[in-house]
Amino acid sequence: MIMGIVTADMSMSLDGYIAGPKDDGNPGGELEALDTLHAWMFPPHGDFEQIARERFENVGAVVLGRRMFDLGEPFWGEDPSFHAPVFVLTHRAKDPLARKGGTTYFFVTDGMQRALAQAREAAGERNVMVMGGANALQQFLKAGLLDELLLHLVPVLIGEGIRLFENTGVEPIALEQMSMTETAGVTHLRFRAGRRNQND
Amino acid sequence: MIMGIVTADMSMSLDGYIAGPKDDGNPGGELEALDTLHAWMFPPHGDFEQIARERFENVGAVVLGRRMFDLGEPFWGEDPSFHAPVFVLTHRAKDPLARKGGTTYFFVTDGMQRALAQAREAAGERNVMVMGGANALQQFLKAGLLDELLLHLVPVLIGEGIRLFENTGVEPIALEQMSMTETAGVTHLRFRAGRRNQND
Repeated sequence: MIMGIVTADMSMSLDGYIAGPKDDGNPGGELEALDTLHAWMFPPHGDFEQIARERFENVGAVVLGRRMFDLGEPFWGEDPSFHAPVFVLTHRAKDPLARKGGTTYFFVTDGMQRALAQAREAAGERNVMVMGGANALQQFLKAGLLDELLLHLVPVLIGEGIRLFENTGVEPIALEQMSMTETAGVTHLRFRAGRRNQND
Repeated sequence: MIMGIVTADMSMSLDGYIAGPKDDGNPGGELEALDTLHAWMFPPHGDFEQIARERFENVGAVVLGRRMFDLGEPFWGEDPSFHAPVFVLTHRAKDPLARKGGTTYFFVTDGMQRALAQAREAAGERNVMVMGGANALQQFLKAGLLDELLLHLVPVLIGEGIRLFENTGVEPIALEQMSMTETAGVTHLRFRAGRRNQND
């Protein structure tokens, strides 16, 4: 059976941050750095509907961390762009949360490997997207579970906050650049991450 | 009088490092990460002579930190690629050191601003290139003295070492992407750094 691949998709500042010090996950709090990092997706820079459609076109399931879920959920709202099951890595068991358009949030308490297995099963021939946050992506990178990484590199130095690449281990991880494009001054870089564990 | 601009040119890993933990500046020591980061310039990936020629074509003077000088000088040798005066930021006064082909190392003990002034005077209508290391570049960025930044983004995660972007302050610094190209799997990104101090 053909399986989809495991991808990740993150907006990062040139100095390596995916969130600023004020982006603390409190709904309604200040999101200065997050706004800066995601501005390319929204008018007048980008067409959010089109970007979201393309982004999730081949995605059959999503994996994300609990902190990112708490931060993003109020924004994603009643009709999220995922249109797919979303597996949230958490320590607290909760009933699934169904939204419009095919999105259901499932709360997985038994770890990254188990969340990925469930996501792959749900996705079938389509891809699994690891949406972040940093901690979740680091775990996937370090475990060699990622096939592709799409980075949106935003030309700003934020100076402090949450770095995407930390705790990936001292063993160098070589990626392979597959493509680069530019929209609204942001560089979109796609890398082959070289999954180390092919035993599915 | 037309003045050149102040540029910087650095190879950086995708996780933001310009040197690894073993690249400690001891001549003859291990240079694992530096080798990885600069491999794109050398055969079989690149033609070093041509890359160096293009890199220094419009450069009338170079500024670099003392640590980078100590690390690089044995490698740059008797006929360095600079073909221009090089101003080394240091705390210890030394006589100028002349090399073949127009390169002379001058040791500047009275700070970054003074080194830049001397470099600009020497460069005239040509550009001043800040070659690093990280500390020197951070000082120039933070002081708003840089016009352009050319980054060679190498698709590897090094995991530890010296980060290029640290200590740039908590005030976001917006850059403007000017161009992107790719050679040997490395992305070359040119940014307008938006010099804040135009009073020359």
